[in-house]
Amino acid sequence: MTESDESPEEMLARVRASFDRQAMMSTLGVEVTAVKRGHVLMSLGHDERFTQQHGFMHAGAVASVLDTACGYAAYSVMPPDAAVLTATYTVNLMAPAAGKRFTITGEVVRAGRTLVVCRGEAFADGGQRPFAVMQATMTAVYGKAGLSG
Amino acid sequence: MTESDESPEEMLARVRASFDRQAMMSTLGVEVTAVKRGHVLMSLGHDERFTQQHGFMHAGAVASVLDTACGYAAYSVMPPDAAVLTATYTVNLMAPAAGKRFTITGEVVRAGRTLVVCRGEAFADGGQRPFAVMQATMTAVYGKAGLSG
Amino acid sequence: MTESDESPEEMLARVRASFDRQAMMSTLGVEVTAVKRGHVLMSLGHDERFTQQHGFMHAGAVASVLDTACGYAAYSVMPPDAAVLTATYTVNLMAPAAGKRFTITGEVVRAGRTLVVCRGEAFADGGQRPFAVMQATMTAVYGKAGLSG
Amino acid sequence: MTESDESPEEMLARVRASFDRQAMMSTLGVEVTAVKRGHVLMSLGHDERFTQQHGFMHAGAVASVLDTACGYAAYSVMPPDAAVLTATYTVNLMAPAAGKRFTITGEVVRAGRTLVVCRGEAFADGGQRPFAVMQATMTAVYGKAGLSG
Repeated sequence: MTESDESPEEMLARVRASFDRQAMMSTLGVEVTAVKRGHVLMSLGHDERFTQQHGFMHAGAVASVLDTACGYAAYSVMPPDAAVLTATYTVNLMAPAAGKRFTITGEVVRAGRTLVVCRGEAFADGGQRPFAVMQATMTAVYGKAGLSG
Repeated sequence: MTESDESPEEMLARVRASFDRQAMMSTLGVEVTAVKRGHVLMSLGHDERFTQQHGFMHAGAVASVLDTACGYAAYSVMPPDAAVLTATYTVNLMAPAAGKRFTITGEVVRAGRTLVVCRGEAFADGGQRPFAVMQATMTAVYGKAGLSG
Repeated sequence: MTESDESPEEMLARVRASFDRQAMMSTLGVEVTAVKRGHVLMSLGHDERFTQQHGFMHAGAVASVLDTACGYAAYSVMPPDAAVLTATYTVNLMAPAAGKRFTITGEVVRAGRTLVVCRGEAFADGGQRPFAVMQATMTAVYGKAGLSG
Repeated sequence: MTESDESPEEMLARVRASFDRQAMMSTLGVEVTAVKRGHVLMSLGHDERFTQQHGFMHAGAVASVLDTACGYAAYSVMPPDAAVLTATYTVNLMAPAAGKRFTITGEVVRAGRTLVVCRGEAFADGGQRPFAVMQATMTAVYGKAGLSG
């Protein structure tokens, strides 16, 4: 990933503009808590509408936010003209998503021009050990009509 | 996985009872289209509330249904006293989830007593090539208080 | 992946030329049994030098061949000027690699210009159920100095 | 994972005894550099016998050592009567394995009684950024005849 002249404020505005277009994130009630180049922090509350059969938040809801946190961590280091897509991710659910509020992190492990590898972690109610972890591969897409952010 | 005396009708009732307790599935509007031992078919419609920044269904929504289809494929071959949890899955998003209706499959590759490996595929609008595939590892949990289905 | 004028014989020669440069495959004693566009079949014998602590073939040896079978399945559908690299794979080891001879398959699920998603399966001694499965993401690299095959 | 009365020296002896039975590790020339409870460090040298078509160490060789480092990180926190098996792992190869000597780490993220989730990283020639990362799920096996270590 080549260096860019983009300021931190411009990067933040770019990330927020894209995030705000993700209807699923507002439907889930996800908030972006912090963004640095290569690091994103998000927050998700327990919501009865998104539970699985045992009453915990559905793995899919947690994975969606982990995926999004990894996606924007990757996007934050991409050139401004790139769009970001998830190529593949692996998520481990190590304990049920039991809690009232979940903190979800995404960070870049290594970035190439087209592929950016990220890691994410999910924590419940201020816990120190993650209950879910993700390893994700994001793709930078350039010059595809109609695809931005 | 040892043989069970459970009839196909009992298995189907067991799967449906668990699925019906997954609030996230009803929130997403997911329908169970077919269930055989080791095979599950689900259906998901495009829904503006669950889109990503380019207007396609969010990878997380698709992955949630793939995960659930794999989970119930695994659950369908588990002994009636087991509960099913997702240990880990890998999903590849090979094309955007562009379409009006998505067909999602889950099938058991191989089942052990505690771990069941499954594969899932997602198709758009009757297409023949999947736009997303999953490889999932499900856990059978036995005798855990308060955990059934 | 755009169509190519390459004949099946040219494709086969291209795959074999690259495979023959993989010292690890000859060290492991791997043979290419069959190659079609998008499908590769390989064969590996039990070898005491590559066992794990319980005397079975090491997961890493099996995964190496699965990775290679997936890689050449992807390479077989790539344009002749592309080089193939593994971006990421997930392997499930569902049973020990117990047997005298292992059959390993790789097949393309869906191919884009830069990313090709493949699946692989490993069978022992003519068994019908795989003991290991892989989901892999291969990258086509174009015009990188010194990188061919 | 319940606490054990095992001393650090007993744990180390247990890990080494199992590692020494892995023929593949001695064939690859892998050395165990450091072992703490939940953390393992290994070292691998470049070896022409295990290269891929471009002359770099084969992804399969690197992944084998990452898998083994994760496996012994998991094993180091397991009760002494457990045997360790790899259930599944995901590896990302972010750059070719270019170098003379590779440092490979494995660490436990979270351990349950039967499943232990680990992460591994591979570095070339003292580099600070990993060229490969792994997320692995290990299984503890209890009381299986003939399976120890």
